[in-house]
Amino acid sequence: MSKLIGNAVFGQSGGPTSVINASAAGVFQEALKQENIVKVYGAAHGIRGILDEVLYDIGQEDSKELDLLKTTPSSALGSVRYKLANPDKDDTDYKRILEVFKKYNIRYFFYNGGNDSMDTCNKISKFMQKAGYECRVMGVPKTIDNDLWATDHCPGFGSAAKFIATTTMEIFLDARVYDTPMITVLEVMGRNAGWLTAATALAASKGYGPDLIYLPEVPFSMEKFLSDVEKVYKKNGKVIVAVSEGCKNEQGRYIPEMVKDNLAKDAFGHAQLGGAASVLAEAVKEKFGTKVRGIEFSLMQRCAAHIASLTDINEAYMAGQEAVRAACAGITDKMIAFERVSSNPYKCVTKLVNLSDVANTEKKLPAEWIINDGTFVSDDFVQYALPLIQGSPEYTLEDSLPRFAQLKKVLAKPE
Amino acid sequence: MSKLIGNAVFGQSGGPTSVINASAAGVFQEALKQENIVKVYGAAHGIRGILDEVLYDIGQEDSKELDLLKTTPSSALGSVRYKLANPDKDDTDYKRILEVFKKYNIRYFFYNGGNDSMDTCNKISKFMQKAGYECRVMGVPKTIDNDLWATDHCPGFGSAAKFIATTTMEIFLDARVYDTPMITVLEVMGRNAGWLTAATALAASKGYGPDLIYLPEVPFSMEKFLSDVEKVYKKNGKVIVAVSEGCKNEQGRYIPEMVKDNLAKDAFGHAQLGGAASVLAEAVKEKFGTKVRGIEFSLMQRCAAHIASLTDINEAYMAGQEAVRAACAGITDKMIAFERVSSNPYKCVTKLVNLSDVANTEKKLPAEWIINDGTFVSDDFVQYALPLIQGSPEYTLEDSLPRFAQLKKVLAKPE
Repeated sequence: MSKLIGNAVFGQSGGPTSVINASAAGVFQEALKQENIVKVYGAAHGIRGILDEVLYDIGQEDSKELDLLKTTPSSALGSVRYKLANPDKDDTDYKRILEVFKKYNIRYFFYNGGNDSMDTCNKISKFMQKAGYECRVMGVPKTIDNDLWATDHCPGFGSAAKFIATTTMEIFLDARVYDTPMITVLEVMGRNAGWLTAATALAASKGYGPDLIYLPEVPFSMEKFLSDVEKVYKKNGKVIVAVSEGCKNEQGRYIPEMVKDNLAKDAFGHAQLGGAASVLAEAVKEKFGTKVRGIEFSLMQRCAAHIASLTDINEAYMAGQEAVRAACAGITDKMIAFERVSSNPYKCVTKLVNLSDVANTEKKLPAEWIINDGTFVSDDFVQYALPLIQGSPEYTLEDSLPRFAQLKKVLAKPE
Repeated sequence: MSKLIGNAVFGQSGGPTSVINASAAGVFQEALKQENIVKVYGAAHGIRGILDEVLYDIGQEDSKELDLLKTTPSSALGSVRYKLANPDKDDTDYKRILEVFKKYNIRYFFYNGGNDSMDTCNKISKFMQKAGYECRVMGVPKTIDNDLWATDHCPGFGSAAKFIATTTMEIFLDARVYDTPMITVLEVMGRNAGWLTAATALAASKGYGPDLIYLPEVPFSMEKFLSDVEKVYKKNGKVIVAVSEGCKNEQGRYIPEMVKDNLAKDAFGHAQLGGAASVLAEAVKEKFGTKVRGIEFSLMQRCAAHIASLTDINEAYMAGQEAVRAACAGITDKMIAFERVSSNPYKCVTKLVNLSDVANTEKKLPAEWIINDGTFVSDDFVQYALPLIQGSPEYTLEDSLPRFAQLKKVLAKPE
């Protein structure tokens, strides 16, 4: 193994999470310690910051502020959804990245994101290798959706699941205070996988959860939905439904699109409609004539750092730290993944998986965990998810409000 | 002062809050200690539980569960929106209440709610007096809306304000992660008063708040709104707006109704539209063609006990406790109110106000606190609200999820 001495850059990509900055703290604090790494840079808005040469010199930051990153939600460096072209068709961006890497002597590239970002990492690494530029590239996983292949779970999921479970429990109580019928529809994120929506089952495991759970893994039928709701409604007059924003019918159309179709037939097609929760709440109201509430957990489920899971924070930090350690040990083209080596007591260690294997794959909820004719998840899911939401961090507060990390963001200079 | 010996009943009314059960704990634990009070009952669903004779014997509950009420959101006894008739026109309900009071030897009646509930208390007390039945009646204030007259603030407001401020700070970060323009509209509860919407200014005081705040106290104009947003948008491409669900135009029409009017003219009047946030998000999207997010804090703002204010919990408890002490000391027909005897350090004591003075009144945000041409609130509000959100309670958790109070709810027997 060659000793590679140079600078490191870290970027954040895709939708933010409550703990994405904990991975940043892990990368930064570990990289600042490593002898092979001279300077540590943070790229503004992921790959865009590299293309635009907006790199922050992390060595200039106060260590106290870097610590505060652990409890500061939402990409502190800024994120990006920019997708690099296929280098075989257009290598403009890759050439530019190589140019910037040379200019700043970047020899270590750490990228934090989901499967798209791992694809980006992989393409960049392959291009550097072809160009004969030595650079170690490591992916750090991140997604509240928990849909990355080859890892037991993803940093970000545990905290989002904890917010969803806790909030569902609270809403359960709120939705039952009156002695009148009421149907509540909760909308949860997850465009293709139902992990987050399933997290409402954690609330149910404590006795304060939804009656019905609709996942993107199961084709959605409005008729069946209304009949499922009717059964619960007739029995106890109160219904709580959790629905994934990603639910689609057999034709692959999302819930709001399904209704748009119907409206179109009625010549009201351009009426602006809400998300899945408001569409289903409306459908239920029409059928049962009862009081309904459609509630979207919206951005809160991915940024509610005030109810983050300490386990999630620690593991997100560890993922960042291990990416740096592996790269300094000579490893490249891998993503840090989690392996659950023991369930009781829960123990999780990191492992390395090929970037190329993770890129553009997707992990769905196991079919055997989906029960009750596609309207609930089994205890297997609860046992899987419960360890991931454990513990609360020590928060730094100011007037009982969060004190977020404040980075100076001093611009890096070329070598 | 006569010594009145008998049983006590407590009921919860109106929309729940994160700390409404802390007042219940205060009433119960104090009443169980008082010598004059023999048995302590909790009425299911407020006044309905008295009319229907569904009273729980609180003496049968575990003291540990009564303690847990302090961190359990949403009326543990059930709430009600039932409005008693004017006794001069129809005294059926009042006669029934008197009958139940006699049957259960109720001599102390504690009622927890907003201005409507204080009106209920007042009417019941007057009826009992006319009927020659000795009974002491005390109101315990409660409303996240903070709109009760004659009290510095209301139990429930501080915790809702803390959720709103914290969540706004987190959303502020989330809404800024991309380097592309984005407009976010946050919808906050408060049908007639802007106290809760103003709480987003607490987030702004820390540097992570909205640019514009729209309150029900200021007539809403869509034209002015769009022009206000445009000014901020042109300057920095990111806009966060907080809007009260209670904003109305000069004609007294709420925001969703305003749009419905326009749609009606276009013959699309029956299209189902969302709340203020989604209507404004849509309007902004149409005008600026930018990415928008409409976010409703929905039920979460009144039930997010996991981020409750300890000050609010303690004061809610104290209000319940003091109501019992006052009644046992011979006082009747009063509501417990809060007086801020010192701002720095913050010190709050209870005082007594006439039920008849509180009934059906409303306290709005002071006009002099509304600044920037009706689009923000002054530091006076921040100084007023900040002490009310301070501190976090010790939570009892199970698997890192809330352990709510579990009451046995043993039915009371007539004397």
